[in-house]
Amino acid sequence: MNDRETLEVHLNVFGEFRPKLGAGHRQAKYLFLGNSSPVTQLSVLDQVPDATLTVADTMDLWINIQRDELQALLKRIDGLVLNDSEAKLLAEDENLVRAGHAVRAMGPKFVVIKKGEHGAMFFGENEMYVMPAYPTPRVLDPTGAGDSFAGGMMGHLAALDRCDPQALKEALAYGVITASFTVEDFSLDRLAGIDRGDLDRRVAEYRQMLTF
Amino acid sequence: MNDRETLEVHLNVFGEFRPKLGAGHRQAKYLFLGNSSPVTQLSVLDQVPDATLTVADTMDLWINIQRDELQALLKRIDGLVLNDSEAKLLAEDENLVRAGHAVRAMGPKFVVIKKGEHGAMFFGENEMYVMPAYPTPRVLDPTGAGDSFAGGMMGHLAALDRCDPQALKEALAYGVITASFTVEDFSLDRLAGIDRGDLDRRVAEYRQMLTF
Repeated sequence: MNDRETLEVHLNVFGEFRPKLGAGHRQAKYLFLGNSSPVTQLSVLDQVPDATLTVADTMDLWINIQRDELQALLKRIDGLVLNDSEAKLLAEDENLVRAGHAVRAMGPKFVVIKKGEHGAMFFGENEMYVMPAYPTPRVLDPTGAGDSFAGGMMGHLAALDRCDPQALKEALAYGVITASFTVEDFSLDRLAGIDRGDLDRRVAEYRQMLTF
Repeated sequence: MNDRETLEVHLNVFGEFRPKLGAGHRQAKYLFLGNSSPVTQLSVLDQVPDATLTVADTMDLWINIQRDELQALLKRIDGLVLNDSEAKLLAEDENLVRAGHAVRAMGPKFVVIKKGEHGAMFFGENEMYVMPAYPTPRVLDPTGAGDSFAGGMMGHLAALDRCDPQALKEALAYGVITASFTVEDFSLDRLAGIDRGDLDRRVAEYRQMLTF
């Protein structure tokens, strides 16, 4: 079982949550809008007008019930990260390559499609590519893999303080590798036990793996 | 629909087929035993005693009904190519990374697991790696993708006349790219329309895609 299935979504108080950002967060240069209602995401986006890079996640729920609000968001962000089934749902196309291009045409400069144990795809203005998942023999729980993928990606961009195509590609690799640690234990247990050196070493191994 | 499902297998005369190789074929240096009964594969293998590299394909049918004969074959070949569900079935393990290592431990020097639209994995004595599929927006029919993957791989090794780890890795890339053409049309129509230059250009593009 290297895959996960969402059985139910209970938004509870998160449903009407409209965060008010403090002064520090309003100055953020790298803004990641975690998966929530596009209305919430737009309200956060409005509070960080000077961000260098804005990236959002979304899910099938919002595609199904707030498609117009999501489309409005897509016209205002630099990047969208979503999973394969969501990309197909949003683009209404079963071919993932076409779906990726179609979602990008909805507004964002780039789209990253997460494919779980099969890695990720990138669709930019001038390039598209695929990165496989790092093949770990130890998969305990894939929950949170997508979120830590996005975290690893955004964290690397913020650390580099660049978002050119080369930086984005390297950041995707960092996302893939961050997620590969996440699935090796429950919750954040594996991530909590590694340091930057572990991450960099696995990224180097991954780079070697893809070189032929 | 980037996937295929085998509904029924009718072996017909192929079931009892025991090919007798001519003198030329008995001298082959690169031997690929296409998917058929391991008994047939063993009888062909016996006729090519001086092959430099021997690789076999198999399928779920033989894993289910001729597991012992397949195990005997695995002890005598250099490489096995099979798809993801077959690897899991043969290894009795749902984790594909562990399954690949387990199948390799059954005898062959290396195992290649084909994952359809998700690419391929390689398990060797000292290394394992993943190669994603080439992301083509045009998938008309995936039938034959696995066979042309193996053909592209073996053809490249025979052309290089090498089977060291670096040659194998490059050959896997050629397999991935050969298959990416196959799925773009029915039957052999797409393959029949390309030349070596088209193949090499897409391999170069694929190499670039995996470089970060």
